[in-house]
Amino acid sequence: MILVLKPGSTEEQRRELIKEIENLGLKVHVSVGEETTIIGLIGDVSRINPYALSSHEIVANTLRVREPFKKANRMFKPEDTVIDVCGKKIGAGHFVLISGPCSVESEEQIINIARALKEAGATFLRGGAYKPRTSPYSFQGLGLEGLEMLKTAGKEVGLPIVSEIMSTDVLDRFIEDVDIIQVGARNMQNFVLLRELGRTKKPILLKRGLSATLEEWLMSAEYIMSEGNENVILCERGIRTFETYTRNTLDLSAVPAIKKLSHLPIIVDPSHGTGKSWMVASMSKAAVVAGADGLIVEVHNNPRGALSDGEQSLTPDNYAALVPGLRELAEFEGRRTEF
Amino acid sequence: MILVLKPGSTEEQRRELIKEIENLGLKVHVSVGEETTIIGLIGDVSRINPYALSSHEIVANTLRVREPFKKANRMFKPEDTVIDVCGKKIGAGHFVLISGPCSVESEEQIINIARALKEAGATFLRGGAYKPRTSPYSFQGLGLEGLEMLKTAGKEVGLPIVSEIMSTDVLDRFIEDVDIIQVGARNMQNFVLLRELGRTKKPILLKRGLSATLEEWLMSAEYIMSEGNENVILCERGIRTFETYTRNTLDLSAVPAIKKLSHLPIIVDPSHGTGKSWMVASMSKAAVVAGADGLIVEVHNNPRGALSDGEQSLTPDNYAALVPGLRELAEFEGRRTEF
Amino acid sequence: MILVLKPGSTEEQRRELIKEIENLGLKVHVSVGEETTIIGLIGDVSRINPYALSSHEIVANTLRVREPFKKANRMFKPEDTVIDVCGKKIGAGHFVLISGPCSVESEEQIINIARALKEAGATFLRGGAYKPRTSPYSFQGLGLEGLEMLKTAGKEVGLPIVSEIMSTDVLDRFIEDVDIIQVGARNMQNFVLLRELGRTKKPILLKRGLSATLEEWLMSAEYIMSEGNENVILCERGIRTFETYTRNTLDLSAVPAIKKLSHLPIIVDPSHGTGKSWMVASMSKAAVVAGADGLIVEVHNNPRGALSDGEQSLTPDNYAALVPGLRELAEFEGRRTEF
Amino acid sequence: MILVLKPGSTEEQRRELIKEIENLGLKVHVSVGEETTIIGLIGDVSRINPYALSSHEIVANTLRVREPFKKANRMFKPEDTVIDVCGKKIGAGHFVLISGPCSVESEEQIINIARALKEAGATFLRGGAYKPRTSPYSFQGLGLEGLEMLKTAGKEVGLPIVSEIMSTDVLDRFIEDVDIIQVGARNMQNFVLLRELGRTKKPILLKRGLSATLEEWLMSAEYIMSEGNENVILCERGIRTFETYTRNTLDLSAVPAIKKLSHLPIIVDPSHGTGKSWMVASMSKAAVVAGADGLIVEVHNNPRGALSDGEQSLTPDNYAALVPGLRELAEFEGRRTEF
Repeated sequence: MILVLKPGSTEEQRRELIKEIENLGLKVHVSVGEETTIIGLIGDVSRINPYALSSHEIVANTLRVREPFKKANRMFKPEDTVIDVCGKKIGAGHFVLISGPCSVESEEQIINIARALKEAGATFLRGGAYKPRTSPYSFQGLGLEGLEMLKTAGKEVGLPIVSEIMSTDVLDRFIEDVDIIQVGARNMQNFVLLRELGRTKKPILLKRGLSATLEEWLMSAEYIMSEGNENVILCERGIRTFETYTRNTLDLSAVPAIKKLSHLPIIVDPSHGTGKSWMVASMSKAAVVAGADGLIVEVHNNPRGALSDGEQSLTPDNYAALVPGLRELAEFEGRRTEF
Repeated sequence: MILVLKPGSTEEQRRELIKEIENLGLKVHVSVGEETTIIGLIGDVSRINPYALSSHEIVANTLRVREPFKKANRMFKPEDTVIDVCGKKIGAGHFVLISGPCSVESEEQIINIARALKEAGATFLRGGAYKPRTSPYSFQGLGLEGLEMLKTAGKEVGLPIVSEIMSTDVLDRFIEDVDIIQVGARNMQNFVLLRELGRTKKPILLKRGLSATLEEWLMSAEYIMSEGNENVILCERGIRTFETYTRNTLDLSAVPAIKKLSHLPIIVDPSHGTGKSWMVASMSKAAVVAGADGLIVEVHNNPRGALSDGEQSLTPDNYAALVPGLRELAEFEGRRTEF
Repeated sequence: MILVLKPGSTEEQRRELIKEIENLGLKVHVSVGEETTIIGLIGDVSRINPYALSSHEIVANTLRVREPFKKANRMFKPEDTVIDVCGKKIGAGHFVLISGPCSVESEEQIINIARALKEAGATFLRGGAYKPRTSPYSFQGLGLEGLEMLKTAGKEVGLPIVSEIMSTDVLDRFIEDVDIIQVGARNMQNFVLLRELGRTKKPILLKRGLSATLEEWLMSAEYIMSEGNENVILCERGIRTFETYTRNTLDLSAVPAIKKLSHLPIIVDPSHGTGKSWMVASMSKAAVVAGADGLIVEVHNNPRGALSDGEQSLTPDNYAALVPGLRELAEFEGRRTEF
Repeated sequence: MILVLKPGSTEEQRRELIKEIENLGLKVHVSVGEETTIIGLIGDVSRINPYALSSHEIVANTLRVREPFKKANRMFKPEDTVIDVCGKKIGAGHFVLISGPCSVESEEQIINIARALKEAGATFLRGGAYKPRTSPYSFQGLGLEGLEMLKTAGKEVGLPIVSEIMSTDVLDRFIEDVDIIQVGARNMQNFVLLRELGRTKKPILLKRGLSATLEEWLMSAEYIMSEGNENVILCERGIRTFETYTRNTLDLSAVPAIKKLSHLPIIVDPSHGTGKSWMVASMSKAAVVAGADGLIVEVHNNPRGALSDGEQSLTPDNYAALVPGLRELAEFEGRRTEF
């Protein structure tokens, strides 16, 4: 951390400030400039309250030198993390396809979709049992009953399953039944939930918050990792911008940026990211080329009749038509496809 | 709801669409324009999945006619809601002052601050026992121990207390000990938490999410109210914008806007809203004049040594100097001050 | 400027970098930390290309120490700037009221409004002759003809006039006819226009851009001031946020923030800032209390028939009812009202 | 346009409103719902002031039915526009590469870069003569002298040239010397400039504004087209978001969205869009796959010594290494490469 002093501070004020810093167990390096004096802090500043120093009367500004994430930081673990889920690898060039309906609506529905997906080549089956909805009057998901149906469908066709958790009270069931536990965008900073997930060994799919910066997102990954669970898969799903034509704005530049900052795998959700089924194909392909480690694509047997997010869902036929081109492109780009 | 049809739809296609709508239990009104035909839906559309209609091949667009919030809507309850907490009224012209440190740090600290606040004229004592922090390495609050200290301080000086809840597992304790339960900005869309709070009768202070629209905020109030708890106090605490000089951008225009849309009381947090203690006085006064029903102001005995948010905290002396001017201004504006 | 070096840089690499910096005419101060070495640059860095240094192979990061605005910076001119326009003062506690219709529509219209405004107490008459409109098919203003009408109206009732300029080709006419030249939000970074205005001596009302930060706004003021014209009045007019209920989000916290950063006067436009005439009164009052040096309020004799921005315009009667309360509040707050 | 009436309007009020609408030369269709009555307007509403109706006392809301852009709208011209510049085609599957330094710095510099680009395969040479810079103290470009150097370089190596115009006073020279005239992001809503460019026949490269919606961007294209010049090429160059790690957030989803809304060609600028040279390769490839009609990539012979935007520039060697992969990918995707 660096402190920039206000012009006109006296020798005595500076001495006092330096003493205060040294009392915190740190050392200092002072650079006296023509107009500005700066003080560099040497030592472990991660647990210091920056305001304790920034509010000092002669401090004009404090500048942070280091990124606050550690376990997620590529600087401290240069090689890509690879996460193995039921024999399918994610990361370091291994490319996966997670697909399924936004919500599980019935056993028949989810089994039918699962069969179509398996045949088309999906790596994982996803389906929502608990749905975070803006309105209390919207369909909220079938809950544990829905989870049971998803599990049945996954077993029936032989696909590992992915589902979103919204609170810790059903964590035990998720640990038992689900292969990858998803944390939704609205819960990206539900720190109680993140910490509990950090105490499991389950792979966690951590979606980016609607207005989260890359650093905040990685700090949420850090919450999970700091408790001991390093199996975190990041998922870019579109951010909120001023654009209203699309549901969100898919930020594909997050893919190379995260790859630079972190060793964690990152996948892309073009369905929520755009909110329009006709944009899914081009954005899926662009995500492959941008370097993503996988895709999560919504597929529904009857998008117009879907209880949620129908507008952005592909039909099984659309999906089956999309997969071979994705595989071809991923292989053209040197990726190992896990589908 | 209104459906705008694509140009060139045939009579037969329209008949089919209308039949589909009528099967949902709705009536239609059709307006045939020169270039555009529109279909108005008549009946209760609140449980309809809009995509079921918007994805129909001849539908160009769907337009929503009505706000989706009901219990929070002033249209259905024109008079202001007044919430009575331990004999102090909030709303309909009654103006309150909620104050205290961001975090409870020790019993001595919170009792000392509480005394100073009581003397200066605060209506409620607030203090954080559970702190949502971006980093897992930052101080997370003292938890139930902190809550106990806050309760002791409140009793000691005779002020009702306000504290933030982060998860449902401590809800029983909050119901017993806390007079107003706060939901923080990051949990504004933690729907599981909101629903549980809706099953209590406790007054809930619902902070606006960092990037939430007014409608999303009111829909979160609706989650609480739809379960039966209508004691919701809204709190504007600054939104995320491109500005980095201030911590957030305090949106005072939300005050008259919310007053128009809803009957619920709304208070303002100029401390988080600006992140700078020297802006608190002018923004507090502006909030009074804009029509707010109260303020939540951070006060810390030693802001530079605070374990969180020191930069935005007033000292007890600053606070004592601020209160009389606020009271004078509030009374000049015709408000009944509850302090 | 401060350079943070990557861990693991060699002594020789550092020597080379320092030599490069010294060749730019600067001195350095080096602080060697446990994990990080930082180099402080001493001297005038304002004309240096930061990338020349940040792209050096051992540089991890560059940190700017000083604000880039100079003439607009309160640090270099601590006392408030007061701008005198035709005997009316703006700034340093002098509070003005600028009012009029969004667009000049006819001579009769503008004279009628001017009379009503004069009587109600306005300090300046504003009216648009050139209108920046998103659509080429919308009314674009009456141009020089409109300017002539505005001038006639101003003379008729004895009010100095304010109008918006959109390009330099009519600058001579604006210099001759207009008392305060307005630069609209969409032209805040029209640097060619700003520079030309800087070569005049006219007072300039510089509106904040829709998504501009405070620093970018002050840098645009700096463009005008660096050419020699220090008569700049800033105008907060709402920023773009995710909220769609209001036209923009009026940022009243910009008032105390600008007052801290700069000595320039700042006024507030609650009409564009909210887009809703029923919000104008409460936001006007809040602006007074927040510390603004004036208001710019839209008034139209027939808002429903206005060719632009009718939704946010007050009628002359609404306006006449608003002014006494504003005067009373401004005086309660210790401001000298110039109306 | 659709008007939604407030509940409780009387028969007489409705009759009055309808008469008012009919006086504007429009017809109406009235739908009486259970809670809401809606009035559809039939006829050409494009020149009506919406506030004239929305401010009527019984109107709750007005809803726009049609997009406001016409000449740019794919609905009215379904086939892709192809723009031919000096024999090079842009649009409808023809893919171009525009490249060069942010600023022209000297004749030698621009000729050297031009040679390298020509050899590597660029379709067009770009270089800035006029530079919009946030600070008046930053390098502003060499002006007409720089334009002359760019022209010389273009002729020397046989590449058509692209350069940015900032004001109409140099328009004649741009018409004579430049093959594609660029309008920068900060001038996207400089309507005077757009209209003047609409009166030429020159191809215009219209960059998206920093916070512009797709509709606003297309409306700016409409300004040019409505004056008679239909040779508009759109350029996505990154939007402003809360992310600070990248300079902007490149919005690749704008490519398929614009393709759906408009027939105009769209190219992508990954250099400004990310601000980081190491992200250019992956984002360039993703832009190809997303459906862009070309790329504009910054190349500088000595990025560290560049007078502007060095951090995001490729070296000629990096560029030469990138081009063959782009060509291969574009051809894999079925595009006709014009390089």
